Parts: sequence; structure tokens; C-alpha cells
Amino acid sequence: MGSLSFLAFSTIRCSINIDDHEPTKQNMNSIKLKGSSIYSSAKVDVLGLKNGAAMTTSIATSENLYINTQEVRQNIPTKKQLVDTFRQGLIIEEGVGYRQTIVVRSYEVGADKTATLESILNLLQETALNHVWMSGLLGDGFGATHGMMRNNLIWVVSRMHVQVDHYPIWGEIMEIDTWVGASGKNGMRRDWLLRSHATGLVFARATSTWVMMNQQTRRLSKMPDEVRTEISPWFIEKQAIKEDNPEKIDKLDDSARYVNSGLKPKRSDLDMNQHVNNVKYVKWMLEAIPDKFLESHQLSGIILEYRRECGSSDVVQSLCEPFNEGGIIENGLITDGVEQNNKISLLNGYSVSSGITDQGNGLLQSLNPIPSSYTHLLQVKGESKNEEIVRGRTTWKRKIKTMPLHP
Amino acid sequence: MGSLSFLAFSTIRCSINIDDHEPTKQNMNSIKLKGSSIYSSAKVDVLGLKNGAAMTTSIATSENLYINTQEVRQNIPTKKQLVDTFRQGLIIEEGVGYRQTIVVRSYEVGADKTATLESILNLLQETALNHVWMSGLLGDGFGATHGMMRNNLIWVVSRMHVQVDHYPIWGEIMEIDTWVGASGKNGMRRDWLLRSHATGLVFARATSTWVMMNQQTRRLSKMPDEVRTEISPWFIEKQAIKEDNPEKIDKLDDSARYVNSGLKPKRSDLDMNQHVNNVKYVKWMLEAIPDKFLESHQLSGIILEYRRECGSSDVVQSLCEPFNEGGIIENGLITDGVEQNNKISLLNGYSVSSGITDQGNGLLQSLNPIPSSYTHLLQVKGESKNEEIVRGRTTWKRKIKTMPLHP
Repeated sequence: MGSLSFLAFSTIRCSINIDDHEPTKQNMNSIKLKGSSIYSSAKVDVLGLKNGAAMTTSIATSENLYINTQEVRQNIPTKKQLVDTFRQGLIIEEGVGYRQTIVVRSYEVGADKTATLESILNLLQETALNHVWMSGLLGDGFGATHGMMRNNLIWVVSRMHVQVDHYPIWGEIMEIDTWVGASGKNGMRRDWLLRSHATGLVFARATSTWVMMNQQTRRLSKMPDEVRTEISPWFIEKQAIKEDNPEKIDKLDDSARYVNSGLKPKRSDLDMNQHVNNVKYVKWMLEAIPDKFLESHQLSGIILEYRRECGSSDVVQSLCEPFNEGGIIENGLITDGVEQNNKISLLNGYSVSSGITDQGNGLLQSLNPIPSSYTHLLQVKGESKNEEIVRGRTTWKRKIKTMPLHP
Repeated sequence: MGSLSFLAFSTIRCSINIDDHEPTKQNMNSIKLKGSSIYSSAKVDVLGLKNGAAMTTSIATSENLYINTQEVRQNIPTKKQLVDTFRQGLIIEEGVGYRQTIVVRSYEVGADKTATLESILNLLQETALNHVWMSGLLGDGFGATHGMMRNNLIWVVSRMHVQVDHYPIWGEIMEIDTWVGASGKNGMRRDWLLRSHATGLVFARATSTWVMMNQQTRRLSKMPDEVRTEISPWFIEKQAIKEDNPEKIDKLDDSARYVNSGLKPKRSDLDMNQHVNNVKYVKWMLEAIPDKFLESHQLSGIILEYRRECGSSDVVQSLCEPFNEGGIIENGLITDGVEQNNKISLLNGYSVSSGITDQGNGLLQSLNPIPSSYTHLLQVKGESKNEEIVRGRTTWKRKIKTMPLHP
């Protein structure tokens, strides 16, 4: 039915507005009462639409009321919705998964026209929240259910693992599927699969684990039965990334090769929970990697282990160090691709003299099947000790030169 | 027809995928030939859809080809489209204006759950480009037409004026209309109107002027007849903001009250033209305003006058100074709201002693109908002289406390 409404919506709106660019502006200013403007929207009456989202917000009676009625404006559904035409989302997977169709926007891509990792992370968050939105379980705040709100609980992410095989480009149409499952007794797993709408090619996969925290005490909480009853019917077993033995990330110390200090959150980095946005963490991590490496490499995977919240007054340090995956590559000579020295390097059993470790483009690179990796740490420099915020591992592959659109 | 396709799309996809989470994954990996994976999408065949965007991209024959065929992936239309269901856009205004329906996403809002100015600016860019996309005129790059590409021309913005009356909130549905008009002999005006989809309430209005620049010489260019023939049929007269005498912005100098120096663009700040993104300019401007002011005020208007491109290696300085609008308020005492002194201030003809200039919350504030304003300048510190990038004027009003969702 949502689709039908959209059909009616776009067709009728298209025709009735041809000669009337601002059909509601006149309405809004037509009735003045005690200094405030009373308006009602003729649109909804004309069209008689009944689509769940937004359409019930037909009449507002004063500007102040409009501003104050967030519930009306947001119009969060209190019952499960199967389709949301505005979000281009639908419930799939026998009624428990969510799929959203998304066009990669012009400002979500970098200078190379491919979606940035930050954009992809943002879209993971967006689709997760829209999944909860569609479920009818969304209370106020950042994905908390009604039961969580009654228990003063919020979601906190403890781990996130994203694998990017291909980056979508500007204007490309993606389908993002997301679903949830159990994680231990008190946690929840949330997975995502990002694909090309046209071909089904998998762009990226992601998995994450979430636990509940008491909003007042800031202590982790067991999952109350009330909340389990709400969310467990949505759990399925399927995993986007199989992780039988999830990789553990060592803690870096002050001897890390690259250190960015004095990082301060800006007002615009805070999310609705007044915490530094996850995407900002990733930016801080990546900015610690030398530019020369970033120019020639593309991120293919990132694992984040969250340890502690970061507030608006924290001053953060971003450490990073080339990671010798499997211990095969020594001294970061190859994995780094930035610093060159004259040491002999052992590479997959080949003994290679320094003479051919040219710019990382030559024999060594072609012999090296292992993607480069970095270990990361974000920490708050305390007076007595440092406190970890996130540990991270990034994996990289060499950029493939794409053909220009117009040679 | 686009709407009809969307109807078919969401309904059929919903049903065929219920028991088959990754219908195309099997296809993609089913045929191996010379080490590369050949895949075709069964989706398109099954559904038999003919909708313009993306649907023609039904078959890709190898991963490398897939990566290289940006044209196929972007699928920029070469003919005018009336509806794009993926972008939720349609052509209005007797065939020359564009309207897009957009849900405010979770990551586009700040800590107060309202859309950030940055998000609004991003959406202006997005809808403008989608307008060109729908027109069938879009070549490669950032909104350049085919004729512009043949003449090596790109668009550069010379002026932008945005007025925000109300900030949309997370989950709220907006309609963004955009259209273009002539600006002098060689320029183009682009306007926007952002409204609530549910009530028609105007959130924001914007107008901008654009000129053409030769991509090689970086000099401004006349509009070639070939380009005028392409775009002039889209011109209409209507203006979102009437500007009979556009406000001129004075140039600040080193005596400006607030100065942020040493601002360096990051890789992620560069757009597809390899220039610092406009939104970054605005961030730099706003970050020069004291936090205390920003906490209690909301931006209601911004004017930007662009002077020069900013490249990736420029080191930028952001200057800002309270602006005495109309000369009524002296010394920045009221307009600033941050620094207090003991001077006597003349306010709309009232002579007010310093005793009641308490925290800006008292009598003065309530007597003061004039929003606070700042003048801004971004410049590159050169060795011999400084070079202006953008002049700006921001206008502010006191934040209205909105009721919490759950009191």
C-alpha cells in the first residue's frame, strides 16, 4: 500500500503543482490570529493519502506548536511497517530483515568519485535505525526500544567489522540489507550486506555487536526480559561475515610509529547521545596513516573494538603502527609502503635484497599477496594514566586505476 | 511510468526475496572463466522492468569490466527524465523545475536532533546535481553539461545566500525544489526551496549565482552559445529570495576579533574537482565563532561571496567579527553575546545602562529584535600578501528550547 501511495503522491503532486510553485505558502499566511500564523495543509486533504509515514501530520495549528511537536514531525511508527516509501525501505527475510535502496550522493564520494568509508559507516547507522523504525519498537533516541527506555538503557557498540570489496560510485544505486541476531546472553549482533542494485555485486559486508548501558550510571547492563521479548523475535542466525575466532587487536603503546596528539572533538562531531560520533573515531584513526600510503591504497577492511565512551571535553591521541600480518613481513618495510630502509626482508620465504625494494611498485609488491594492515589505538591522555577509547585494525589494498569517464 | 516501475519494484522484490536473502550471490559466483567471475543479474530478467535509472545495467561480464565501466554503473541519462524513483525526484514547474523528497537521516542531525547547516548545504548540492541529471544534460564531473565539457568549462559558484527559518529534525520528510534562471549575460542563478512534506512549512530558501571557468586556464569564461542553447530553456524568473540590492560584505583585516590560523584541508575535504568542498569553508567560518555564542544561538542566514579557489596545499586563516547590523548596536556588545563590557549601548533608540546587560538573557535581549550577525573572511596567508577565498556574513537568532520528546 505504501507503494501505491507513492504512485499517487508523485503523479498527482506533479500535476497539481505545475502552475503553483508554493501551494501551501498562501495557506500558511492566510489566517492570522493573535500574532501567530495558523495554517493547514491543503495537500493532504486533496490527495487523501493514508500512507503511514508523515501523512498523518496533516494539520498544525501554530508555528510554536509545530516546532514543539517533534513526535508529529518525526512520526515514528508504533506498529510494524512492511514498506516505507520515503525511506525506500522494506521488510524482508520472512518479516525480520530490512532492505533499503540508496543512491550514492554527490557529497558522499571523495575526490576519486567513490563513496568514502565515512559515508558507508553513516549508511550502516542509518539503515540500522530505519530497521528499528520499521519494527515499531523505536522509542526516542538512538535506536532504543520502548522497553529499553523504560529501563533507562541505551545501545552501545562493542565491536564493528566492515569489509569493503568494491566502493560504489557517485550515482550508483545500492541495496543495503540489515538484520539482527543474538550475541551471547545479553548482546545483539547486527549485520549488513551492501550490494549493487543493478547487478547484485557485493560492495561490502559488516557485522557488529551491541550491549546495553544504563544511561545514568554509564554501566553495562544485562538485557532485561522485557527487552528480550521485544527484540528476540527479530533475531536470525545468518552472518554477513563468518567470524569463528574474531581477531584480537593488541594494544599499542607510546612507541607506536605514528602518533597524532591533541585531537579535540568539535561541536559538530557529537551525536544525539552527546558522544563523539563513531565516524569521527575512524577519521582520527585514518588521519594518523601517512598521506603517501593513503594516496596509493584503498581500505578493504576495518575492525573496531570499543572500550570507553569519548565525551566532548576529552583530548584524544591517535596512534598507529604497521601490522605484520602473520609475521611474514618484517619491519613494516612492505606493509607500510612509506618508509624504506636497507634491511633484508623475508617475504613469503623469498629472501629479497634491498636493491629491489624500489617504490613498492616492483617485484616485492607483485610477490606480496598480503594486504597491508595497520593497528590503531585512540586513547585519552589522562594525568595519571591513559584510557583506551577504541582499538582498531585496518587492512588495505593497492588502488586499482579506473578508466576515466571520458578518455 | 517511473512510479509504476517503483510500485512493481518494491512489491515484487518484497515477495520474491522473502526466502532468498542473496538471490544474486549464487549467480555471481556460478560461472568461472579464466580466473574471473562472470555474473549476470537474474533480478532484471525476472522483473522485466524498464525504468530509466540503473535498470539497463543488467549484465556485467567480469569484475574488472565492472570496475571500469563507470558509465554503466552511474547510468547518467542522456535524455530528459520526468521521474526518478530511486532519487525520489520529479520534474515540476512546466517541465523545468526539480523536486526531490528527502528524509532527514540520523547522521545529518546534530546533538539537538535538528539537521545541521552542513547537511542542508550538502542537500542543496545534491538536488542541484540531480536536477542536471534529470535534464539529460549532465556530462562528466560536477554538473557540467555536454556543451561545457566540449569547451573545457566547469561551474564555479560566485555567491550563495541561504536563509533557514526552521531546521528539520531527524526522520522528518522534506521536499526540496530547485530551479535555475539567468544571471546577467554569462551567469546562472540557482534557487532552492526546502519545505515540510507534511505541512508545507518552509524550512529554508536559498539562491546562488554561478559562472563558468576554463578548467585548464582557471580563468572565468563567457557562456558559449552552445551552452546557452542547452541551459536557457530551463531558465525561469521566479526567485526564492528577493535580492534587489544584494548585501555587500566588507573585507575583514588582521584586526578581526576572532582568528583561527593554520587550517589545512584534509584529503577527505576535497571534492570531485579536487577543490576544498564548500561545506568545509562554512565549517571553518563557524568554528571561528566562540563556542559560548554557538551554544545559545542558531544560524538563520548565511551569505557567501566566493573570490578564489582553495586547493589542497593552501593553509587557510578564518577571521570573524561581530557585525553591527544597521549600525544600531554598538561595539558588538549585544550582537556578540560573548564579551561584555561596561560601555553604554544604544539599542533601537533606547539608552541602556550597563547594569542590565547581564548575560544577554535579560531586558536587552528582549528589546532587541535584530538577529546577531558576524562578518567572516577565509584567506590564504601568502608570503607577500594574503589572498581571499570567501567573504561571509552569518545571521543568528537565539535558540528556542524545544520540548523534550518524553517529558
